[in-house]
Amino acid sequence: MPHIELGNDAPGIIGLMKYRPDTAKVLNELAEILLRGDNTLTRGERELIASYVSSLNQCRFCHASHAAFAAAQLPGGADTVAHACADPDTAPVSDKMKALLHVAGAVQRIGTDVTTAHIEAARKAGATDVEIHDTVLIAAAFCMYNRYVDGLGTYAPEDPGAYKEMADLIVGRGYGASLSAEG
Amino acid sequence: MPHIELGNDAPGIIGLMKYRPDTAKVLNELAEILLRGDNTLTRGERELIASYVSSLNQCRFCHASHAAFAAAQLPGGADTVAHACADPDTAPVSDKMKALLHVAGAVQRIGTDVTTAHIEAARKAGATDVEIHDTVLIAAAFCMYNRYVDGLGTYAPEDPGAYKEMADLIVGRGYGASLSAEG
Repeated sequence: MPHIELGNDAPGIIGLMKYRPDTAKVLNELAEILLRGDNTLTRGERELIASYVSSLNQCRFCHASHAAFAAAQLPGGADTVAHACADPDTAPVSDKMKALLHVAGAVQRIGTDVTTAHIEAARKAGATDVEIHDTVLIAAAFCMYNRYVDGLGTYAPEDPGAYKEMADLIVGRGYGASLSAEG
Repeated sequence: MPHIELGNDAPGIIGLMKYRPDTAKVLNELAEILLRGDNTLTRGERELIASYVSSLNQCRFCHASHAAFAAAQLPGGADTVAHACADPDTAPVSDKMKALLHVAGAVQRIGTDVTTAHIEAARKAGATDVEIHDTVLIAAAFCMYNRYVDGLGTYAPEDPGAYKEMADLIVGRGYGASLSAEG
């Protein structure tokens, strides 16, 4: 049960967004720009970073939902996502993605853990400055979303079908759709 | 020196915001709503939460700047802010603020560290559900801002005067002013 009375029974961040529409609007806009806006990283790659960081933060709702969003948009689908979240180095993703996942993992621990070695490895694997910037900000943003979702004690559905439904909505219509669809 | 070429020499998050205006706009809107929008927590109290979390995350730029913003808007000024960041329990702030700082401290560690005991203590000290919600989201948001600022290796001015200048701007004109003023 959530720590506060939300006035709705929607899971995870969806319930929080219905409770506080002013912040919901901005939080959805941030996700839309970072995960779906024009970018040289694919939507699947960016959702993989989101899912990886959520996994490191042990946030069940965010990990399961962004893993589903990544699986729907990444070659190799759910298997690749699960493999990359468990062990980026041996996963069937590009060397650039491996290096960016290491950057994201350092950000998840604490910002000052990102070293010039992380950045040089990412550059050597072909990452641009904007890709490095966006990886850091996506990882940082999920350190927010994860803490928001778990810090207020929201619930995460057990049924994988629930995340598949969210994936259909988000992949098809974008962030913000979940609010209007379930309102 | 920042990890990427920003094309400007502004410190901390200001340099990052000039580099990526699309995300800057949303990040400033989030700060404006959370720290300056209509709320039963004062602006000084909310900046204190931001400063406390930034201190726990050892983010020099965010801690110094939000400590200056809090000091300008909180009874007791800089002494109260420094005391509350070092030891909330003995600081000259309300029992409600002490309890909310403990909630924020748990969020900073990881979302699941927030317990029903934290929430009950905050309620007993007079915190409303919206105040608890906003405290969790402010703390979570600074786990993002702090990681963004340090994850990209931005610099933090040594001169306290630099933060006093930012405080005059933010307290007087709000988030977003720093971008246009230094453009």
